[in-house]
Amino acid sequence: MTRRSYDKHNCPIAQTLGAVGDQWTLLIVRDALRGLGRFEDFQDSLGISRNLLSSRLKQMVEEGLLERTPIDGSRRHAYRPTKKCKDLRKVLLSLAEWGEVWRRDPDGPRIFLHDRNSEASVSLEFCRQDTGQIIENKAVVTKFR
Amino acid sequence: MTRRSYDKHNCPIAQTLGAVGDQWTLLIVRDALRGLGRFEDFQDSLGISRNLLSSRLKQMVEEGLLERTPIDGSRRHAYRPTKKCKDLRKVLLSLAEWGEVWRRDPDGPRIFLHDRNSEASVSLEFCRQDTGQIIENKAVVTKFR
Repeated sequence: MTRRSYDKHNCPIAQTLGAVGDQWTLLIVRDALRGLGRFEDFQDSLGISRNLLSSRLKQMVEEGLLERTPIDGSRRHAYRPTKKCKDLRKVLLSLAEWGEVWRRDPDGPRIFLHDRNSEASVSLEFCRQDTGQIIENKAVVTKFR
Repeated sequence: MTRRSYDKHNCPIAQTLGAVGDQWTLLIVRDALRGLGRFEDFQDSLGISRNLLSSRLKQMVEEGLLERTPIDGSRRHAYRPTKKCKDLRKVLLSLAEWGEVWRRDPDGPRIFLHDRNSEASVSLEFCRQDTGQIIENKAVVTKFR
């Protein structure tokens, strides 16, 4: 991944991919958001080489997605998601929802969101900004300008 | 990008990244959704090599994201987005919304969505599945299982 080749594209999608589009980065975000924190936890989950994982975690700390904090009573460190990282939940959920429809595999682990107050399931919807009303997919018009 | 290394992860996020996580793929989706169709149009937009673009377009046709159709009165072809590709709008919008917040650059082109019927602006929101009510970000709890 060449970050610069994305960053010079002056578009918010390209710029986000410049920050999180490297291979494995979004899966590390997923794992950090489900509570994994130690190097070995990420390695067990992803099954990638120590070098590659180490390089990704370093990039993600530099990008401000993860904070490296000492583990109490140990010389080791843990990686914790920042606000910037937690803000990627809509990205993860949109990827998961697409995968559920187009690459369905009923045996796998799943992402589920619910409302803390009502316990109701939560999904990602297109909504009118003025009224909050949910808009059907087919009524949503995309414009770029 | 090694697709297989993602595909063996039995998780809808990983599987989606296996389909659209290659560098440039989501920007080609963006361009296809804003009406670009010819090889040269994508090349002008992305500024990447003919070989790389050619390889990505081929992968995307094989993946069922684009259809290659003849252009009337010409021996040339155009690439048109399929339903599977159009279904990536939530992914694009979630990436764009994150980029607007965390990598803001007011000079760039922007993605805008509106409701075909009311012309109201449309955003991506977490909603209760039972009532359709919008849930604040901080009340949304993520679970993996």
